Amino acid sequence: MAVGELSETELNEIHEAALDLAREARTILRSRFESQLTRSYKADGTVVTDVDLEIEERLRTLIEKRFPQHGILGEELGISRPEAELRWILDPVDGTENFSRGILTFGIIIGVHHRGTPVSGIIDHPVLDLHYSAIRGGGTLRNGSRLKMPDLPPSGDPRREVFAISNPISYILSGSCRPLLAFLRSGINLRIYGDCFAHTRAVEGQIGAMIAVNNKPWDLAASRILIEEAGGLYKEISRLTENGQEKATAVFGKKPVVEFILDFIAEQNRGENRPA
Amino acid sequence: MAVGELSETELNEIHEAALDLAREARTILRSRFESQLTRSYKADGTVVTDVDLEIEERLRTLIEKRFPQHGILGEELGISRPEAELRWILDPVDGTENFSRGILTFGIIIGVHHRGTPVSGIIDHPVLDLHYSAIRGGGTLRNGSRLKMPDLPPSGDPRREVFAISNPISYILSGSCRPLLAFLRSGINLRIYGDCFAHTRAVEGQIGAMIAVNNKPWDLAASRILIEEAGGLYKEISRLTENGQEKATAVFGKKPVVEFILDFIAEQNRGENRPA
Repeated sequence: MAVGELSETELNEIHEAALDLAREARTILRSRFESQLTRSYKADGTVVTDVDLEIEERLRTLIEKRFPQHGILGEELGISRPEAELRWILDPVDGTENFSRGILTFGIIIGVHHRGTPVSGIIDHPVLDLHYSAIRGGGTLRNGSRLKMPDLPPSGDPRREVFAISNPISYILSGSCRPLLAFLRSGINLRIYGDCFAHTRAVEGQIGAMIAVNNKPWDLAASRILIEEAGGLYKEISRLTENGQEKATAVFGKKPVVEFILDFIAEQNRGENRPA
Repeated sequence: MAVGELSETELNEIHEAALDLAREARTILRSRFESQLTRSYKADGTVVTDVDLEIEERLRTLIEKRFPQHGILGEELGISRPEAELRWILDPVDGTENFSRGILTFGIIIGVHHRGTPVSGIIDHPVLDLHYSAIRGGGTLRNGSRLKMPDLPPSGDPRREVFAISNPISYILSGSCRPLLAFLRSGINLRIYGDCFAHTRAVEGQIGAMIAVNNKPWDLAASRILIEEAGGLYKEISRLTENGQEKATAVFGKKPVVEFILDFIAEQNRGENRPA
């Protein structure tokens, strides 16, 4: 094994640990669902509860104990050992707003990245009892069964597909991203769930593609590997850093549908750059 | 009892029959979920499957047998006895697109209206095992337990609420309804589910309000009574007939949140009518 490469044994050990963390987080979340929560608002206007913090602290402690040399990036508690080649990325409750209101689509996101490439990824929906996991080269499982994304939508026409975008939609409506606004205007069948339920719908192939706009690293920590190992396509279309916060826009889902969206955006961009 | 009034006995008998129909439809839908379906597209571009037709035929037969004098309006098979004072309104599968793709938020909608006023209403999500029912004057139940909608959102501020709108969003984006477009642009936290899961989120009080745009009668058949009997507010804001098809736009949910939306729309309309 070359220095810095990840052995299969090491990868399996990491993935098993990630599965343990997801089980731990699921147990806590199920026990606190529909209980009284302490809600507060973060600087960015989003909601956080005592449960988000409790889970992230618990998961970080478990990682530190098992892999003291690994880096950790969590939504609530920031980054440890940013220089480490292996980084755990945690979103203890993705969709806190939904979780705190009793809307059962929220989930836990755990990703492990090796030099920036995802090698293990999990999205778990505790109340829906839906668990998605992927390990690099080993496929994507839903509740233990291998997923295989259909290549083409039922109609064979990408425009007949269902699409999902991330909230807030006001960013697109404000005109900050004209090609995507044009896409939303084109009569597509759209979903907005406000959490990673949209990502797992794409992993299942139930929707054609997810358009994740300006997502933070923990929002996307598991989606790339879950999609790719299920046989789908994941394309990052832009990345920016705003007030020290990295954000990415990515499209992922069935290959022909993702390509259809990328072509649509490219066509829109060509139109805007055409001399008048 | 005045001629043409509905007795309590008659109302109870109707509601019991509606609950029977929902159980029947749930059994069929659960058995066909994730099975091979015959999908086709209707004139309006939406999907229909053999299951939609099978369930509506079955429910109509049961109603005809028990209440031969009642009217029936169904999504797939049209209207019978339009002059009847009592009308059953049926959406055998609300969210056929979701159902046929395995997205578990779809539901069955059954409403019974007496001279246009809903007296019994049911929305059932077969795979999520969530059942909502209401009888005029008797409250709204979720899986047998009485629901009481909180009057104010957790934050106390209607703008911090979660809102849902019906698909397609392209109608609003095209500028056909400027006040609603302005509302979507105002930075609200939005959901689009593409079926009656949005309605039942409003009935639960999990979201502040649902904005149902240009909905057909069967889409809204149960929502008014479910919301009102849970202690919420339902307001129809417009109604039109297009190619012989009646469509209504309604806002419903927590009282202060619905009033906030209506005020926002009124303010937008005043702005548009102001002399330049």
